[in-house]
Amino acid sequence: MPYVGVGAQKASTNLTGAPMMKAYAFVLAFFLLGLGVLALGKHHSGRRFNQYSKVSIDDIHETDAKTIQDNIKSENIKKYLRIFTQEPHIAGTDANKKVAYAIASAWTEADFENPNSVVIQNSAGKEIFRSKGVSPVIIPDEQSGKYAGHQWLAYGGNGTVSADVVYINRGNANDFKNLKLMGVDVKGKIALMRYGHGFRGDKVYKAQQAGAIGAILFSDTSDVAQDGVDSEHVYPKTIWMPNEGVQRGSLTHGDGDPLSPFYPSKKELFKGRTIEEAKDDGTLPSIPVLPVSYTTALQLLKRMSGRAVPSDWQGFVGGNLTYKLGPGFVNGEKLTINVHSELKTKRIRNVIGYIRGAEEPDRYIMLGNHFDAWVYGSIDPNSGTAVLAEVARAMMQTINETSWRPARTIVFNAWDAEEFGLIGSTEFVEEFVDVLQKRAVVYINMDCIQGNASLHVDTVPTLEHIAIEAAKHVPNPSKRERSRGRNTVYDTWMKVFPEKKAGRPKIRVPGGGSDHAPFLNFAGVPVINFNYKNYTTFDTYPLYHSMYETPFTNIHLMDTEDLAVHRAIGQYWAELAKTFADEVVLPMNTTNLASVMIKSYLPQLKASISGINVSRIDFESIRTQYALLSKSSQDLLVMSKKFQETMQFTFHSFSQNPYDAKHVNAVNERLISTERCFINPRGVSKHNPSARHVLFSVSDSDSYSNSLMAGIQNAIHSYETSPSKKNLREIINQISTVQYSVICVVNTLRDVI
Amino acid sequence: MPYVGVGAQKASTNLTGAPMMKAYAFVLAFFLLGLGVLALGKHHSGRRFNQYSKVSIDDIHETDAKTIQDNIKSENIKKYLRIFTQEPHIAGTDANKKVAYAIASAWTEADFENPNSVVIQNSAGKEIFRSKGVSPVIIPDEQSGKYAGHQWLAYGGNGTVSADVVYINRGNANDFKNLKLMGVDVKGKIALMRYGHGFRGDKVYKAQQAGAIGAILFSDTSDVAQDGVDSEHVYPKTIWMPNEGVQRGSLTHGDGDPLSPFYPSKKELFKGRTIEEAKDDGTLPSIPVLPVSYTTALQLLKRMSGRAVPSDWQGFVGGNLTYKLGPGFVNGEKLTINVHSELKTKRIRNVIGYIRGAEEPDRYIMLGNHFDAWVYGSIDPNSGTAVLAEVARAMMQTINETSWRPARTIVFNAWDAEEFGLIGSTEFVEEFVDVLQKRAVVYINMDCIQGNASLHVDTVPTLEHIAIEAAKHVPNPSKRERSRGRNTVYDTWMKVFPEKKAGRPKIRVPGGGSDHAPFLNFAGVPVINFNYKNYTTFDTYPLYHSMYETPFTNIHLMDTEDLAVHRAIGQYWAELAKTFADEVVLPMNTTNLASVMIKSYLPQLKASISGINVSRIDFESIRTQYALLSKSSQDLLVMSKKFQETMQFTFHSFSQNPYDAKHVNAVNERLISTERCFINPRGVSKHNPSARHVLFSVSDSDSYSNSLMAGIQNAIHSYETSPSKKNLREIINQISTVQYSVICVVNTLRDVI
Repeated sequence: MPYVGVGAQKASTNLTGAPMMKAYAFVLAFFLLGLGVLALGKHHSGRRFNQYSKVSIDDIHETDAKTIQDNIKSENIKKYLRIFTQEPHIAGTDANKKVAYAIASAWTEADFENPNSVVIQNSAGKEIFRSKGVSPVIIPDEQSGKYAGHQWLAYGGNGTVSADVVYINRGNANDFKNLKLMGVDVKGKIALMRYGHGFRGDKVYKAQQAGAIGAILFSDTSDVAQDGVDSEHVYPKTIWMPNEGVQRGSLTHGDGDPLSPFYPSKKELFKGRTIEEAKDDGTLPSIPVLPVSYTTALQLLKRMSGRAVPSDWQGFVGGNLTYKLGPGFVNGEKLTINVHSELKTKRIRNVIGYIRGAEEPDRYIMLGNHFDAWVYGSIDPNSGTAVLAEVARAMMQTINETSWRPARTIVFNAWDAEEFGLIGSTEFVEEFVDVLQKRAVVYINMDCIQGNASLHVDTVPTLEHIAIEAAKHVPNPSKRERSRGRNTVYDTWMKVFPEKKAGRPKIRVPGGGSDHAPFLNFAGVPVINFNYKNYTTFDTYPLYHSMYETPFTNIHLMDTEDLAVHRAIGQYWAELAKTFADEVVLPMNTTNLASVMIKSYLPQLKASISGINVSRIDFESIRTQYALLSKSSQDLLVMSKKFQETMQFTFHSFSQNPYDAKHVNAVNERLISTERCFINPRGVSKHNPSARHVLFSVSDSDSYSNSLMAGIQNAIHSYETSPSKKNLREIINQISTVQYSVICVVNTLRDVI
Repeated sequence: MPYVGVGAQKASTNLTGAPMMKAYAFVLAFFLLGLGVLALGKHHSGRRFNQYSKVSIDDIHETDAKTIQDNIKSENIKKYLRIFTQEPHIAGTDANKKVAYAIASAWTEADFENPNSVVIQNSAGKEIFRSKGVSPVIIPDEQSGKYAGHQWLAYGGNGTVSADVVYINRGNANDFKNLKLMGVDVKGKIALMRYGHGFRGDKVYKAQQAGAIGAILFSDTSDVAQDGVDSEHVYPKTIWMPNEGVQRGSLTHGDGDPLSPFYPSKKELFKGRTIEEAKDDGTLPSIPVLPVSYTTALQLLKRMSGRAVPSDWQGFVGGNLTYKLGPGFVNGEKLTINVHSELKTKRIRNVIGYIRGAEEPDRYIMLGNHFDAWVYGSIDPNSGTAVLAEVARAMMQTINETSWRPARTIVFNAWDAEEFGLIGSTEFVEEFVDVLQKRAVVYINMDCIQGNASLHVDTVPTLEHIAIEAAKHVPNPSKRERSRGRNTVYDTWMKVFPEKKAGRPKIRVPGGGSDHAPFLNFAGVPVINFNYKNYTTFDTYPLYHSMYETPFTNIHLMDTEDLAVHRAIGQYWAELAKTFADEVVLPMNTTNLASVMIKSYLPQLKASISGINVSRIDFESIRTQYALLSKSSQDLLVMSKKFQETMQFTFHSFSQNPYDAKHVNAVNERLISTERCFINPRGVSKHNPSARHVLFSVSDSDSYSNSLMAGIQNAIHSYETSPSKKNLREIINQISTVQYSVICVVNTLRDVI
């Protein structure tokens, strides 16, 4: 029975036992809007233990989970896809507001009249090339929205810049280091960099730090058109990027509204950072930046002077063309980039819905995906939005047609403005961090379906077993795979992405780049981030952030068996949600965390430490703290195993007498609490104090990748840059900080302190 | 039934239903020691609701609470007092270790051979006065411990300093400001300051900041010998301070181990601050400091030159003597202070015991007192230690002899090294902050019994009603008061410390100065800090931190009716503990918090804001944020009232069916969570980031007093010192931060977010 009131209603009127799905649009910055009640009905709990009849969790699982899976239909996903991708719906636009309200109409946006451009003039000042700045419409039915083809990057500086060009490969830290070694300086130049192997915002941040006065990003054909650039081998014939196609994206360095660090961007609260401060501290770039197609990139690359690039900097644009470092063009041509941009405050809206838990309403199982897109977003993000809508509908159908009802509350989240730096989710987490730290069990993110080959999961060690187990319960969407005996999603996953030594699929800890990040990094809520991927294009998919992400791509190029992959994604999502919502004792495995610490993280840390150039006596002081951390990790292993007995005992007593629920609550509260132990409230990084997870917060240098124990890594980096006594102490201090978190888990699992 | 294992035992072996009192000494820095099991027995829960027989909480209260109160005996308190005060037991000494283990023997301490001294030489260089540096033994039976009479201050700098003396009254911020206005500079001088009206550590910190090279603190007779200094009017005839008596104490600026900010001072963890850094940042003083008696102070005051002090700076030392500002002495005498001190790392031990809760073992009701003393400590702190031991014993007796057993876990805490800057409690809170934030319901502190006139309570608004209600259930210990019709502790409280307008006793929010501070300021655990006081000596009691705090004082001077006040203190403590342990729905009143915000805190804030010297447009920007905070406070009031209905409904359903306990858990978790909303993880003060409570953290300038919304006050102070745009924004930002906390409470009480 639900036990507390909803919204403005009185508590007493809501104690009716009726399950409901509530949803509302959540306006960051202004006000709250009701989206109405999706469904109502009367049902019993799925957990029917009592002292006479003992029903195992697995039985219930088989009954009701299958029903949800059966209810997930490809045709509905298709319908949702069409509705959600009818128009370009960039965050902050009216069009996107309409997606939040689930209906779309015309979209207007005034800043796109004048396309951005790259211009090349010969030495006599005559214009010899001007990029269009607009990608062509290829499927008019789906791509004719106003300004849909305009090529731009969010937060790029405004203005016109003329300078020599320098090529810096992927623009990561190593590339800049090597460029320096090769004697080329980007200061005062325009940086030309390839997309991939890192977040574009970090590339531009580094270029600006190195003194570049402008930047150009392009997709190399070696990434996005591997079979050739002729019309037979690119979109719409294949999934490869066509000529003039361009990846859009954000350039912010740091997550959330750049003007409201730590706090939600709400009208009634103060904005702690000004735009000037955001530019001064590098959160926002100051230089103009443009994204260009490989077609345009060729115009630059073929003219470039200077030495040939190192072999791993060479791409396939222009076929046999040899890339040059620059600076500048061979015949003294002049390069100019024109960027028309403007910083504006916009209103955004998250959509939050929930099915109230029958037994533990204040325990939240959170499912999320963003809904704002760079253009039409039929892959990123609305492949996920469509699936999530179907999961919600199927769950309510199951509730209405069977005896099932989730024991814990399932929360559905559609985030706005993810593309501008995870703003919707970050501001939500900042607004509710206290509540989430108390109540959130898990956040399960699915940003978009990037391919059709296999499930791919990133998660934390405590949840790996659940991610694997759930995959074994989802039928394989591929006819071809089933015909080869791989009947479940798990079977193909194990085939395509195996971690051979461990005898299970490869699972990494999630980095940044989607809405799970603030949950893990800022709030310490464990996350699962999953999707489908192709192994050939692992980094991303070719049409990423282009105008060609429309339903045609999903249905005719990527998921051609009646959206079977989309459906499987929904079934996996539902399966995970149901497991977390219904398991009596929460399925969190701290023993695996301890094992991974001991077998993987500590050896990696040891290797980092061994690499420090330091005196023997100073090395010993670091090593001593490392040994103590190692000892604490062993303590954690012992305590976790002991606690597993408590978990089993608790589950056993519950099976005997479900009314003795107080022990279940205490055990589950301890399990939830263990995850929060890794949050350092003062942050692990001076540069980004919102990164607070001492094990898993993303690195300073690459927001996409997970960086293990970033605080220690940053301290080592500082010491190597400037080897002072104080910086040495900071390395030891950071090791001790990780150790404090490990001890916190031990204390949390231990009996009374 | 207890449901999880204890320490190294297996979970399964502890699920026996036996209540137990466990206690162990908790060693900060080294290892953990068991103190053994105090008692064992078999009992039922005190909460006996079921669907057939409905028993009201009040009935149970009358039955079992009385029994505990009856079991609390003065003779036992006397016995404990003797055991705990047999010897001087300064934190970190072997003697104090023995108190931790409950048995005392000889005490040795090598640093006291050479007493500290004040020396005056005439202009010819002849010594004309040298203070003894040692207080005389007056009651040999109780005061003959080695070095018991030595006068010193913890953390004072080591060395000999000669300079002119300047008198600076109480040494608070205002005094230093006025000194400057009067044209006297303390730079290069020795600061002479009176105890009282602020923490001595803050006085010395300010003197050092102002350039003093040494400091002397004395107790003015106007504070500690109001009836005259002749033998008939001071100790041992009265409670007033005798000649040569001296207040000892700590000089640290900030709480906890100065070398381990934020983290526990444990052997296996790194110490983040060096002694040099602690001195550089003002955490530890660098200058020598001495405490002197009024007898010695007279030798200084009567020689001083310069202008007469303002009337409120004048004290009673020397009877009609007029105090002078200085600098220096009238006949050019030379003043020297000799301080023999040394910084040493010592091992300290907290003693933690608990009675496991029968229903909710992971909800902690915490009772605490420190046990280290400056000398014998029969008042501060062992009046409390003796009472707490009796409360623990009486509770176990009640458990063994009646059906009562606490529903929640009661934790007993004896802190070490409180006198050195709340070290034991601060390091404990730093070690277990995650666990405490999840599980601690309340921390109830009783440092020492300062007088015999009336109960005196400091607490937060959410708990005021419980503090009052409990006092109504404790019999009045004073025959005289009972004969005047005041039968309960409450009646006398209301008489002695009335808040007339509110029609209830005066209750303030606790400041610093005892072990409740880290619970409230760092962890956001609500606290009650109480004792008995005399209205004539409100600030402290005359013999405070002198060698004359031995049982004689408690028994023959202060609490002469067979320690009836001590007993009443124990009964009140037990009454509070039982209420928090057994009430089905936790008695936390957020409605009162909202009312106090609206009626008291916001008007105070408004007054502060109105006082800022700022342009009209800037004032409007501050005022706008203030109005939004005001609006949020109104929202809190509405939401709190609504939640009270939920609380009542929950209690009602529980009475009908106690097995439906999940709603109780959720409601109580919300109530506990509301208190944590006021913790800003990044701290409210740049100078002291361990101060994290946005409403109640202590002020930068006076660690003893509570400073309302210290973050805003500090920002206003910074703006007034340096009125920049950035500092103006910081005022608004700090108001917004408080507002964020208020909104957090609303969100926590609200239904699903």
